[in-house]
Amino acid sequence: MSTEAGGPAPATVELLGVLAYGELSAFDRLAEDARAAPTLAGRAQLSTMAAAEIGHFRLIEEYLGGSGVAIADAMAPFVALIDSYHASTAPRSWLESLVKAYLGDGLGADFYREVAGWVDPGTGELVRRVLADTGHSAFAEREVRAACAANPAQRDRLALWGRRLLGEAVTHAQRVVAERDELAEFIVLGSGEKGGVAGLIKTVQSAHGKRMGRLGLS
Amino acid sequence: MSTEAGGPAPATVELLGVLAYGELSAFDRLAEDARAAPTLAGRAQLSTMAAAEIGHFRLIEEYLGGSGVAIADAMAPFVALIDSYHASTAPRSWLESLVKAYLGDGLGADFYREVAGWVDPGTGELVRRVLADTGHSAFAEREVRAACAANPAQRDRLALWGRRLLGEAVTHAQRVVAERDELAEFIVLGSGEKGGVAGLIKTVQSAHGKRMGRLGLS
Repeated sequence: MSTEAGGPAPATVELLGVLAYGELSAFDRLAEDARAAPTLAGRAQLSTMAAAEIGHFRLIEEYLGGSGVAIADAMAPFVALIDSYHASTAPRSWLESLVKAYLGDGLGADFYREVAGWVDPGTGELVRRVLADTGHSAFAEREVRAACAANPAQRDRLALWGRRLLGEAVTHAQRVVAERDELAEFIVLGSGEKGGVAGLIKTVQSAHGKRMGRLGLS
Repeated sequence: MSTEAGGPAPATVELLGVLAYGELSAFDRLAEDARAAPTLAGRAQLSTMAAAEIGHFRLIEEYLGGSGVAIADAMAPFVALIDSYHASTAPRSWLESLVKAYLGDGLGADFYREVAGWVDPGTGELVRRVLADTGHSAFAEREVRAACAANPAQRDRLALWGRRLLGEAVTHAQRVVAERDELAEFIVLGSGEKGGVAGLIKTVQSAHGKRMGRLGLS
């Protein structure tokens, strides 16, 4: 999906813009949540997850920059809606932060794994690099499982939280698509093979359920 | 300066503990300051500087981990004093944030460049890798110089701020050394060749002055 001049198509720029602001805002929220860690080790872990988001962000920045697109311009249309997602899902505890970090990373990865096949090969390769697992998810799994095993009421609250995160993510993603015609058309076309947008949501829901299981929340 | 068993000497663990917590706390403050950026581009730049601190932090974590030392244990003695430094130098504006990020990075680098020669070769190599310029200083120089050129009163305020940062850094560093006998002895021994602690402070002051000049603040 590239233009004849070789630059990325408008829908690809939009896609990378959402991805980039998703990373930048995740960095910001994870860094803030890290401050509330109960231990220095936990703070270091969540800070490391935050920093990994910037590593991904920088890959997109370089890629867009190579095509003469300023990343700030590509991100601008998506700032308000992604900020609204984070405002509506502000963690109230360290465990909620960990669950959000873990599930949020996974949700993003699901979505981008799907779309990587719909874009031009150069962009697809970039998206796959951005997706590469940062290897810090084991920490969140361990902490959340231990907390849940010790306290069933805690597990029930976190399970509700995990389901709410999925709901808010889907709602906000739908709003993004509703506001951006180019992106909507791109997703409808791309997801057509696998049952369209409804099929995409179903895939994401199923993967989310598996991740809830790995956290001990299903 | 390594023990017979090959692990780092206690003073080296303390040194790496200060360095590591310096990086982790700088990450935290830069991430917080990034939120107040006037533009998305500025926010991305300061966030990238923050993430670079975690890259350095991780190098130290791996190195200490290889010797069986938990980085959280190495950092613990220095948390209160480094937090106190940041509390006493909380930026009140975006430009103060940039000046603090730039000068703080430089002050840390000066200190570690000096001590890299006093430790065992493995630790020295690590310290030099941590020091490697992250290449984001040009952004701060450009922004601060432009703001100062347009507004001499602004320049005078930021010049005062830059001098205060040095004073607070020296005061807090002296407190750290006063509280940690091993570290104090290590610094006195190491800096002996170059005129002791007074010589070390003089070296740092001189480099600070040059950095103030590059920001247009001298």
